[in-house]
Amino acid sequence: MKLIIDTKGSDKGPTTVVKGAGMALEKYKDLSLVLAGTRAEVEEACALNALPMDRVEILDAPGEITNYDHPAEAIYKKADSSMVASLRALGEREDLSGMITHGNTGAVLAGCVRFLSAPERTRPALAALLPAENGTDTCLVDTGATVDCTPSMLHHFARLGSDFMQKAYRVERPKIGLLSNGAEASKGNRLVKETHALLEADEELNFIGNVEGNVALSGICDVLVADGFAGNQVMKVTEGTYRRIITEVMKYGKKTGSRDVLSLGQYLIDTYDLGSLGGGYILGIRKPVIKARGNSGEKAIVSIAGMFYNLASHRTFYEKN
Amino acid sequence: MKLIIDTKGSDKGPTTVVKGAGMALEKYKDLSLVLAGTRAEVEEACALNALPMDRVEILDAPGEITNYDHPAEAIYKKADSSMVASLRALGEREDLSGMITHGNTGAVLAGCVRFLSAPERTRPALAALLPAENGTDTCLVDTGATVDCTPSMLHHFARLGSDFMQKAYRVERPKIGLLSNGAEASKGNRLVKETHALLEADEELNFIGNVEGNVALSGICDVLVADGFAGNQVMKVTEGTYRRIITEVMKYGKKTGSRDVLSLGQYLIDTYDLGSLGGGYILGIRKPVIKARGNSGEKAIVSIAGMFYNLASHRTFYEKN
Repeated sequence: MKLIIDTKGSDKGPTTVVKGAGMALEKYKDLSLVLAGTRAEVEEACALNALPMDRVEILDAPGEITNYDHPAEAIYKKADSSMVASLRALGEREDLSGMITHGNTGAVLAGCVRFLSAPERTRPALAALLPAENGTDTCLVDTGATVDCTPSMLHHFARLGSDFMQKAYRVERPKIGLLSNGAEASKGNRLVKETHALLEADEELNFIGNVEGNVALSGICDVLVADGFAGNQVMKVTEGTYRRIITEVMKYGKKTGSRDVLSLGQYLIDTYDLGSLGGGYILGIRKPVIKARGNSGEKAIVSIAGMFYNLASHRTFYEKN
Repeated sequence: MKLIIDTKGSDKGPTTVVKGAGMALEKYKDLSLVLAGTRAEVEEACALNALPMDRVEILDAPGEITNYDHPAEAIYKKADSSMVASLRALGEREDLSGMITHGNTGAVLAGCVRFLSAPERTRPALAALLPAENGTDTCLVDTGATVDCTPSMLHHFARLGSDFMQKAYRVERPKIGLLSNGAEASKGNRLVKETHALLEADEELNFIGNVEGNVALSGICDVLVADGFAGNQVMKVTEGTYRRIITEVMKYGKKTGSRDVLSLGQYLIDTYDLGSLGGGYILGIRKPVIKARGNSGEKAIVSIAGMFYNLASHRTFYEKN
């Protein structure tokens, strides 16, 4: 397994990304990596973290796409950026199985369209696999890549999510839920009502109807379809609420000095810290790209490497695309 | 203080509503109530729960507006419904300070427009006061009354929320946040971007910019402005996540038998159970109406009575409107 990592674009800087890369190499002995970035910077970080250099290749790409750049423009103008270099390499090189980037989401999406478009050239979506209450995973699509959607885009997201959960996670007939403000078919904004009709008419989808926010991650559906604006709220509100309650638990533990409470807190941190859960899958492209959160730490790289190993064990998904 | 309660429309039936009414009368000794509903049914429930009938008036209204009725139509056609009777009474009778209903949200809104419109006849909004992480309250507006919004509607929601927090909760220069998928002004869907410009240009508002879902209830703003679809997600996802973590805490407590964990669980239930927090304020009308959740229990009535006492101590809000 060889992955390419765009070392720029993380809020924590390339050193943290390279440190995470080292941890992933430590954990997965058959993994090798291409690290794209400013050569001197990457080399220094590799030395600092004692990376096994026989399993590391450095792709010199000193340019950087920031969050202030216009996504589509940057992809065309910043050819020397680590993001463009990585996407181009992934598109061209057969030895690369996937890519990890922390960078500007819009630019990653635009770059995926340019270098990794599926034959149908449909718009890619950014999906997250979130742990559901019943122990399954819920694929939320879209989580923020496209914030102004049409019903046919949401229909496309439903198909991407259904295909992904079938092929990459071996869920038979994935249950598709449509995020709404009420469970009845009559509930929703115009977008949701029109999408409801499209999903219901699509016989290839196992559409279960509208799903409300309070049960969105109960496990009621395998794929939760939402426009990127509302989907982003589901993901971030969940994350903020976890963080808030976990903070309360740890405070209570420290105040009372109770070991039971503190170990509960640690269990909750391990289970519910979405920040360490890795990144978002870009769906609708030829080869897998995983977008790590800009503020994620080195552990996220290890989780994401694990996500690639999981994908690799069910190869059919990206091969078909 | 005299309030009118629409005893129909609760998922738990009029008996639960009347039981809650009795608990509120027990707690607030200067409270008196008008209970609208089917006379025989209400009388029976009053007897069953031993309500002090010298402080209770029954308004016979045997009709009912259900969640299957078309909101605006029902308000005009079901004149004998407990909801219409209550709204009409609140609009006409000077002795009534406010109303509580569990019924069809759309119908309540339509009824408010018909019987309680402010002179400007603007569209009312459904706001919720949610406890924020820093100990303040955040007024989320809209929580689901209007799911297809224009920028000028969101601007109006911002003004309603700002006015409410100032007049009813004595917050000076309430900080107004706009729910978005990124903190930067450039982030958001079309609706949010256009609203951002309107809020920024309004010098009477203390607009602090975009607020992301993960900090929406941190206390960063006093008023969180959102279209009813996204606002509904913020409220319900928060509620679902609380419920999920609290369930985990209680399970862990039972498994380990730890008293500390169980008492932490009880503390979290008391603090974070949004279901018992009462109801949503309808803003932009002449007199206060509070919409209880359809599935809330008897305790919600007591909480809502408390909300009216709080409003009464800062009378300026609804008097002005």
